[in-house]
Order: sequence, then C-alpha cells, then structure tokens
Amino acid sequence: MEKDHIEDEVVLFGSWSSSICTRVHIALKQKGIPYKYVEENLQNKSQLLLSYNPVHKKVPVLVHKGKPIPESLLILEYIDEFWKDDAPMLLPGDPHHRAKVRFWAKFHDEKMAPNVYKMIFAKGDKDQVGKAVAEFDKLLTVFEQGVQNDFPAMFQSVGEGHQEMGFLEIVAGVKICIYEAVEATVGAVFDTAKHPAFTSWVNALKELPLMKEHLPPHDKLVARIKFVLDQA
Amino acid sequence: MEKDHIEDEVVLFGSWSSSICTRVHIALKQKGIPYKYVEENLQNKSQLLLSYNPVHKKVPVLVHKGKPIPESLLILEYIDEFWKDDAPMLLPGDPHHRAKVRFWAKFHDEKMAPNVYKMIFAKGDKDQVGKAVAEFDKLLTVFEQGVQNDFPAMFQSVGEGHQEMGFLEIVAGVKICIYEAVEATVGAVFDTAKHPAFTSWVNALKELPLMKEHLPPHDKLVARIKFVLDQA
Repeated sequence: MEKDHIEDEVVLFGSWSSSICTRVHIALKQKGIPYKYVEENLQNKSQLLLSYNPVHKKVPVLVHKGKPIPESLLILEYIDEFWKDDAPMLLPGDPHHRAKVRFWAKFHDEKMAPNVYKMIFAKGDKDQVGKAVAEFDKLLTVFEQGVQNDFPAMFQSVGEGHQEMGFLEIVAGVKICIYEAVEATVGAVFDTAKHPAFTSWVNALKELPLMKEHLPPHDKLVARIKFVLDQA
Repeated sequence: MEKDHIEDEVVLFGSWSSSICTRVHIALKQKGIPYKYVEENLQNKSQLLLSYNPVHKKVPVLVHKGKPIPESLLILEYIDEFWKDDAPMLLPGDPHHRAKVRFWAKFHDEKMAPNVYKMIFAKGDKDQVGKAVAEFDKLLTVFEQGVQNDFPAMFQSVGEGHQEMGFLEIVAGVKICIYEAVEATVGAVFDTAKHPAFTSWVNALKELPLMKEHLPPHDKLVARIKFVLDQA
C-alpha cells in the first residue's frame, strides 16, 4: 500500500485480535463513515504502520486525508469531532456528562483492564491469578456502582430499541465482551452473580449486530491467547 | 464549607504543592472564570473532597454548580467545553491538531512524568536515579522532536507577544517548570544543553505572569519534597 492517498480517504490499520481496534471499527460503522481496513501482522508490522505511529508502534492507527491518529481513545474523540454533525455522537453533549463518561472510560482502561492482562500473564500461577481476580472484582464493584450512580439508565439501555453504542459502551463494553476468551484460558474473570446489572449490560452488548460483526471470533481468539502465552 | 452552592459557582479543591492543581488555576484564570479555591491538607483530606472524588480521593477536583469533576486533564477538557465561547481555547480547533495535542499531553503524563517520580523516590540510590534520568532523556528526545514536527512554532511561540498557554503548555509546561525543585533534591533531571529548543520553551514559560503567580514557591516545594521523602 502506498502512502499516497485520495482526499477524504479513511484507512484503519488494525489487527483482528485487538479489541481496541474493534472500538474503532464500531465507531466508524455507527457514524456511517466508509473506510478501508488494513490488517497488520503484529509479529511483523508494516513500515507504513511504523511510519504512522513511530512513538508507540501500535495498532490502531486511523489515517484520514493522509494524517495519522494513533490510540483508540484519541481516535474516538477525533471521529466525534471531525464528523460532528453525523449522528450518533459517541460522547454525550453535556460537558459534565462528557467528563463522567471519560472518567469511567479511563478508569476501565487504566485500572480494570490491566488486571485482566495480569490474569493471562500469570500463566496459571494460582496465587497471582487469584490476586488479579480479587482486585478486578473490587474495581468492577466501584465501576458498576459509579456508572449506575452517574448514568442510572445505562446498564438497562442496550437492546432491541437501542442499538447504538456510546463512548463508554465502545470503550469498556468491547473489552469486556472478549473476556469469554480469557475465561477459556484462565478461568472466570469475575463472578456474574455478584454483578447482575453489569452482567446483563454485557450480555445485551454481545447481541448487538455491530458487536457480533466485529468482535474477534471466540475460538480464534482463544487460540491466539494460547499462542502469545507460549511465546511469552 | 457546606455542600450547598450558589448557581454557577466554581470551586477548585487543590493543594499548593500539586502541579496538576496549578494546571487548573491557570486554565481558569486564562478564561477569566471567577472561582473559589479550597486548600486541602493532603495528610488529612476533607470529607467534602472525599465525597466529591470517592474513587481516587485526590486533588484537583473542580466543582461547578455543585457537580464535581476530578482529574486535571478531564477538568481542562471540561473548562474548554463549558466555556466554549470564552477565548482563549486551550485545545486548538482543528480535530487533527486536537488529537496531536492530546497525544503529547498523554505521552508526557504517562511516559515522561513517572520517571521524575522514580528519580525522587530512588532516595539517592545512584543506579536507580541514573536509570530514570537516562530513560527520561530518551523520552524527552522523542517529545522534543515529535512536538517540533507536529507543531513547528510551539517551542518558539511563548514570550512577550504571546502570554497565553495552550493545553500542552499547561499540561507539560507546568510540570516541567517545577523540576527545578526536583533538581535541588536529586540532581539534574535532564541536560539542558542537549535539548535547547525544549529548554528555551520551559524558560519562556517560567516568565509568564500566570505561571509565576501559580507555580509552587521553589523553597517551600523543595522542603515539601524532602518532607515527603522522610515520611516514605
């Protein structure tokens, strides 16, 4: 693929196994933005990807009109800002609600998600897995109560009549939906019975057509996690 | 202080020694937003602060119309969004420029700044300090070249004719200006001769009236760092 680009062209560089890339697919599709997709081999990244994200050398990168934007959260903000007249908006309109959505998205990515990586990379060490599971449960309780407090309708709002995902659903929801694949390799990530509101939200998210279309296939992802662990 | 509030009231909960609180002072002052300031004792935080930021229990928290917004970067975004017609804007208008400013702000906070904490908490262990200084220098080179590439005028733009700070200047600049106090306790954070463009930017930032008004006083901050180290 050449670096030349046509005006207004949107290209996403990603990997099928990366749930942070899934975030970008869903955001673009919801907005109805046509885009090209370039699948990267994470074991042998393209020179083009490295030139677009020389600092972190990671997917996803969105290239719009030849200009690269790395990092999924920054890409979501960009999509909302550039196509600001195209519904649905990912972030709510009210500045205080926006701050709260960003707060919980950050909490998910910086506090909760690292514990799932710890579970995986504990490579079966029961003590380490147990510690990460306990820590995740504590954080999930904070997340569940906090989101319910800030957005009382959010966990009940996904379903038949409401197919669109907002910023927090795309950021946290997509990641959480792939925990099934983690569970297939390390055991339960969290106790669904202890978190009914959160669990029903996740289950409803999994049924959304865009989620079904773009979530990494379960069996393939399980095999991938095992492969990465064998290499680690 | 009571939780009752008057309509439109803006209250900042902060600490004089916290440079992330300085960010918020400067952003509010630049926009011309009147606000009350509540100094928190970080050794004995108020119940009100804990109720406003129960998750992280940290300053700064901005309370506007009785609604709390924690975390300095989220507060800066909020200020720009709520007072969106009040110049100066902290973020540029162009969505791609906004993404790049957020990228470097995040790079500063997540990659560069933690090395300065490592220098401090190495408590004089020369190996550890040396490692953190070397890592900081590597990251600073990336930051300096990256920002110059993305915003060729930025490092030369601060001075007599240009007193306003943008998002990146407020986020990275404020932190970097307090490194003098770090240097007084652990030695040089970085080699100014190796980073002339960056250094002249920092020196120009230090001369801005709002920076002079709100940066923690040098001697007091040095004493504070020594006190925290004695407790650690």
